[in-house]
Amino acid sequence: MTSITDLTAEGDIRLALAGLRARAQELSRVADETARVLAAPDGLSTALPAFREFARASVPRWHFAMLNDHERNDALATALERVVPRGGTVLDIGAGTGLLAMMAVRAGAAHVYSCEANPLMAEVARQVVAAEGFADRVTVLSCRSDELVVGRELPGRVDAVISEIVDCGLIGEGILPSIRHARAELLAPGGVMLPRRARLLGLLLQSENAVNLNRVGSASGFDVSRLNSFATPGHFPIRLHTWPHRALSEPVELVSFDFSADPLGPGGRKLAVPVREPGTVHGLAAWFEMDLGGGVTLRNSPENIGSHWMQALVPLAEPLDVEAGSTLVLDLSWSETSLSLA
Amino acid sequence: MTSITDLTAEGDIRLALAGLRARAQELSRVADETARVLAAPDGLSTALPAFREFARASVPRWHFAMLNDHERNDALATALERVVPRGGTVLDIGAGTGLLAMMAVRAGAAHVYSCEANPLMAEVARQVVAAEGFADRVTVLSCRSDELVVGRELPGRVDAVISEIVDCGLIGEGILPSIRHARAELLAPGGVMLPRRARLLGLLLQSENAVNLNRVGSASGFDVSRLNSFATPGHFPIRLHTWPHRALSEPVELVSFDFSADPLGPGGRKLAVPVREPGTVHGLAAWFEMDLGGGVTLRNSPENIGSHWMQALVPLAEPLDVEAGSTLVLDLSWSETSLSLA
Repeated sequence: MTSITDLTAEGDIRLALAGLRARAQELSRVADETARVLAAPDGLSTALPAFREFARASVPRWHFAMLNDHERNDALATALERVVPRGGTVLDIGAGTGLLAMMAVRAGAAHVYSCEANPLMAEVARQVVAAEGFADRVTVLSCRSDELVVGRELPGRVDAVISEIVDCGLIGEGILPSIRHARAELLAPGGVMLPRRARLLGLLLQSENAVNLNRVGSASGFDVSRLNSFATPGHFPIRLHTWPHRALSEPVELVSFDFSADPLGPGGRKLAVPVREPGTVHGLAAWFEMDLGGGVTLRNSPENIGSHWMQALVPLAEPLDVEAGSTLVLDLSWSETSLSLA
Repeated sequence: MTSITDLTAEGDIRLALAGLRARAQELSRVADETARVLAAPDGLSTALPAFREFARASVPRWHFAMLNDHERNDALATALERVVPRGGTVLDIGAGTGLLAMMAVRAGAAHVYSCEANPLMAEVARQVVAAEGFADRVTVLSCRSDELVVGRELPGRVDAVISEIVDCGLIGEGILPSIRHARAELLAPGGVMLPRRARLLGLLLQSENAVNLNRVGSASGFDVSRLNSFATPGHFPIRLHTWPHRALSEPVELVSFDFSADPLGPGGRKLAVPVREPGTVHGLAAWFEMDLGGGVTLRNSPENIGSHWMQALVPLAEPLDVEAGSTLVLDLSWSETSLSLA
């Protein structure tokens, strides 16, 4: 007996295998290019343009906007000047181009260990750090921070942990598990943590355009919702002012994290949000307020349209009609890296 | 003797190798996951969530916004109703979810061959087409259109070639070489081509925010321009109304293509653009006007903020100050897939 469920499971399996085939196809192109390079008379140097094409795919595009975000850069520089222990050692999680690590040296750190999970970005950081004359005070480590061991990559526990691995919804790049690990294993007792704390805020959002960036139903009468298997689960970025939308509530606090004291694990809570205007709720528009220490706060609220960070949209499974004056109760949960509504 | 040039070349080679290492790391994760799945008691079906995660990376996010773009869908459906030869065979280049192929059948095609280079999207299309009951009239081929051979994948030359592999700058997804090949090898003499023709328009753009999405100089006093090796070469997408900007000229025609008659190869031309307002030119903001046939035109001009297509920014190497009433002469060139200014 073949049920619909069996057919769906079979379809899922065929999709999984097709996903592997897509990856294999990509790898095959890399392998072909590598073979071509090795056979070329001048070796690697003649084939740099083709290799740069592959390397380009490893560099997320947001690095450019992020490095040009003066508000962010200035806030980090100011906070570092105020909190970095003079003559201390620092661990920087997520080297990127090495910018924060160099800022920390400029702020008085004796040595910064800067780790970067992306091997290409680690090499970029190494070259930037060397060209700027910081190679003797910044060590770029090509690994994830939770692979670092005191006595192996680090000579001892560090005096400060600094990190700006923060997405539009704060936790999407893994700041919770990274800081949890670093605090337990790598930071000296009483050491400095930057950021110190952060909270997520959000409001009830009506915006069909925004949810339509990550969900399909039918198109011209054809059901194409099969594609939703590949929608981003949990929250996803939207630049709120770009799309028609209505705020149906005031902002409320969604959750807050004290990076020096809280367990920083996955969790959940019930949110009771007073409805200000009648309409259809598609989800929460969310953003963070991050206390970097030294009196410096950084936020990607909807009115901060100059920030390179977008806002986060946490979608509801189904749109919900609400009336003014009522209270909407939502189940918010957060995993290690994503926000979602039950 | 070691010159600066040698050092740069060495740095480039180290970056190329780091790029390969980043790809290898990704492959290693796929291999680990596959091994875990094969060792699982229930095989593939128990590990679908992890596999879906890999598959997700193979589906470009713009598919969602594109499928929700009613203006696009309606224009394509209308044009297909008007131009598809009743009872004819059709080649659809770039199946996606199979939407255009199903539209073509609805418009009267006897059979549609729909090819898709991404193996995962080809499987999605197969499942959508089957679920909608079109499996006997739509054949999804998992390959690039230039790999198709008459007498092998296709029984004969087709009566129509339809395609919407079009990016913000028209040519970025390879419509020029794809149609060039299909016209020469796969389309019957006098066959229908959709789109019929297209032209690119553009204006002189002042917008530091826009060029800063793809270029860095210094950040907080540190030179991080090494990252520019990984900037997108040629044109890149911007949603123009999202960013502060000034138009310093009226729109001018950049280039036009007749898909039935023109050679559709790479080329170039000198543009003389009258300057309307004084300012600093960062590049051209460009968009297309695509004649789908049957009197239907689709455009992603800056005022069409509902379109899922962004506009294209073709950057100048260096910003250029201009005076009102002068004429700026630019060298525009197009490769197989990208627009650039000399």
